Amino acid sequence: MTGLTFEILNTDGKARTGSLLTAHGAIDTPAFMPVGTAATVKAMTPDAVAETGAQCILANTYHLMLRPGPERIERLGGLHTFMNWPGPILTDSGGYQVWSLADLRKMDEDGVEFRSHLDGSVHHLSPERAIEIQRLLGADITMVLDECTALEASKDEVARSMRLSMRWAERCKAAFEERHGYGLFGIVQGGLHPDLRAESAETLQALGFDGYAVGGLSVGEGQEEMFRILDGVAPQLPKDRPRYLMGVGKPADLVGAVRRGIDMFDCVLPTRSGRTNQAFTRNGPLNLRNARHKDDPNPLDNTCECPACRNYSRAYLHHLVMAKEILAAMLLSWHNLHYYQDLMAGMRQAISENALDAFAAAFHAEQEAPETDDNVEA
Amino acid sequence: MTGLTFEILNTDGKARTGSLLTAHGAIDTPAFMPVGTAATVKAMTPDAVAETGAQCILANTYHLMLRPGPERIERLGGLHTFMNWPGPILTDSGGYQVWSLADLRKMDEDGVEFRSHLDGSVHHLSPERAIEIQRLLGADITMVLDECTALEASKDEVARSMRLSMRWAERCKAAFEERHGYGLFGIVQGGLHPDLRAESAETLQALGFDGYAVGGLSVGEGQEEMFRILDGVAPQLPKDRPRYLMGVGKPADLVGAVRRGIDMFDCVLPTRSGRTNQAFTRNGPLNLRNARHKDDPNPLDNTCECPACRNYSRAYLHHLVMAKEILAAMLLSWHNLHYYQDLMAGMRQAISENALDAFAAAFHAEQEAPETDDNVEA
Repeated sequence: MTGLTFEILNTDGKARTGSLLTAHGAIDTPAFMPVGTAATVKAMTPDAVAETGAQCILANTYHLMLRPGPERIERLGGLHTFMNWPGPILTDSGGYQVWSLADLRKMDEDGVEFRSHLDGSVHHLSPERAIEIQRLLGADITMVLDECTALEASKDEVARSMRLSMRWAERCKAAFEERHGYGLFGIVQGGLHPDLRAESAETLQALGFDGYAVGGLSVGEGQEEMFRILDGVAPQLPKDRPRYLMGVGKPADLVGAVRRGIDMFDCVLPTRSGRTNQAFTRNGPLNLRNARHKDDPNPLDNTCECPACRNYSRAYLHHLVMAKEILAAMLLSWHNLHYYQDLMAGMRQAISENALDAFAAAFHAEQEAPETDDNVEA
Repeated sequence: MTGLTFEILNTDGKARTGSLLTAHGAIDTPAFMPVGTAATVKAMTPDAVAETGAQCILANTYHLMLRPGPERIERLGGLHTFMNWPGPILTDSGGYQVWSLADLRKMDEDGVEFRSHLDGSVHHLSPERAIEIQRLLGADITMVLDECTALEASKDEVARSMRLSMRWAERCKAAFEERHGYGLFGIVQGGLHPDLRAESAETLQALGFDGYAVGGLSVGEGQEEMFRILDGVAPQLPKDRPRYLMGVGKPADLVGAVRRGIDMFDCVLPTRSGRTNQAFTRNGPLNLRNARHKDDPNPLDNTCECPACRNYSRAYLHHLVMAKEILAAMLLSWHNLHYYQDLMAGMRQAISENALDAFAAAFHAEQEAPETDDNVEA
């Protein structure tokens, strides 16, 4: 567990800025990691991803184990070389996608058997195999395999599941140490039950990890519940290790979670929205299909420095969207990732000035500014 | 007709290099113009298009008149501003697409009435409106409206159609002069009949144009027939004006046509192929779906300097294609446009050294090199 060093630079309330040093470079925190599911951040070149300010991307073990296969990626020089991303890469463990995408066949203490959503072929994932795959990929940050529990599960079921995940976390750590990976994060589970979350956080710390993720949130519980859980969990995690809120989220989620002490995020929202005609702006999201953009010579956001805003009008982006042009997805994904990175940079700056409360207040005021009739024709 | 100047720099047999100066910059000829149908070269940013070496792009009047509309584009600052392409733009007249895409309703001496392929709305295109639209777009090079004749039409029908196109060319020239456009090209028609082609070339020269296009080829007649017509037509066109072979073509078509004295080309092939998993290389086309690329660490072409070749393996491109990732279309389009521009640059260099025959021989020898089992699994 010596591959990652984490230095706290500033604090502001529970929030903090830091620098997480990996084998492929440093990550300024709080950080947002774009998602490169199948070894590509969709509709973006790696150069463009880096230009948005992103320093670390996430890749999905589930997708890559099915296609093109981790052994193949290793033979081809590892994921950094394969996808031409020289910076840090965090890989998830594949667990979440097994539960959300695959056809689950069998789950027991050892691991999980499932059918691929691509071709129906049968695969097996265990804590040991999840670590092995991430090592083959060459991950800078490796995640433990955990079981995902349904939001509607009973407390008994959540407790059983969390404790299984904790036993898997222990096996992951043992497998990781054998294979000399770069950095391993544990994942706090326990659903919406503060006592189970506390038990999980304590168990993981007793094992000792390079960082601690909070899993099982942003699955439909709502922002208020998510923040309630974070209020409880964040203080139970070691101050000197990075905290990662998995799969989150909307801009307002990021602001609220940073204020609660979270350091890292990933989410498909900026890129998926970019492919479905949505643009994030200081004043809230825009739907570029909306006919009111048809003659608008203004950029998406006149304070944004991304190429989509520097070089194109809303009218042009509307045209590309209506014509179903690939460039629409390219430019809107670029803008959205840029927006997310700007938001994180703004929060880092505000924390360094002890001004995060004012930053958050300004953020919410702008987001709440009335936006004519947008989204009406969505 | 004073907007364009054309200077011949070198000749080699019938082939020549030149510089065509437009209101938005110079075009080195022989030139290949990428197609930006709907005000975007598909799956490419304009910066990337320029990086391939392209100096002039083509945009389609038919598509842009239907969506977003030429008056709207003019209000938004013209096509160069709208699509963020600062270099020269050639617009076609819309004629070809009216015949190939739209539901033709009525054709007479005045013009053509058709239903949009997008929404069934009825539109009218006349020589005067075609010129007006191209002026609203801000074209650097404007094309006359012509009628497109089916390959299987009788000679009488081809003659009737060609003579109508010549009367339209005269009306286009009058409309163009009224509107002070930048440069107007006539289009030689006449199908596969050398005498009709000669009549058309002569009629156009009597009117006087900034450049002369050869239309109605690459419509299924085959390369041999196309070259036979070019052998006849090229010498009948003025030496001091650019000659443009519309809608052509495959790499070998370009080499053969340059040797016959053609200066300009456009074709969707490099970008369309890029979106359908095909890559052009010195050794012929590759189909990236082919399983033999799955483990291949080599680039598409180890002599190519494009980003797809510098940064990615065939194995990665195969993976992107199989995963239906947008980046596949982006990288393969980029490579293909780069290949086409390299081919044109190579021909310009060879002409300047009086070595085009040797260049063409080397080109064909490489293209004919046996390519294992490629295209088998297409």
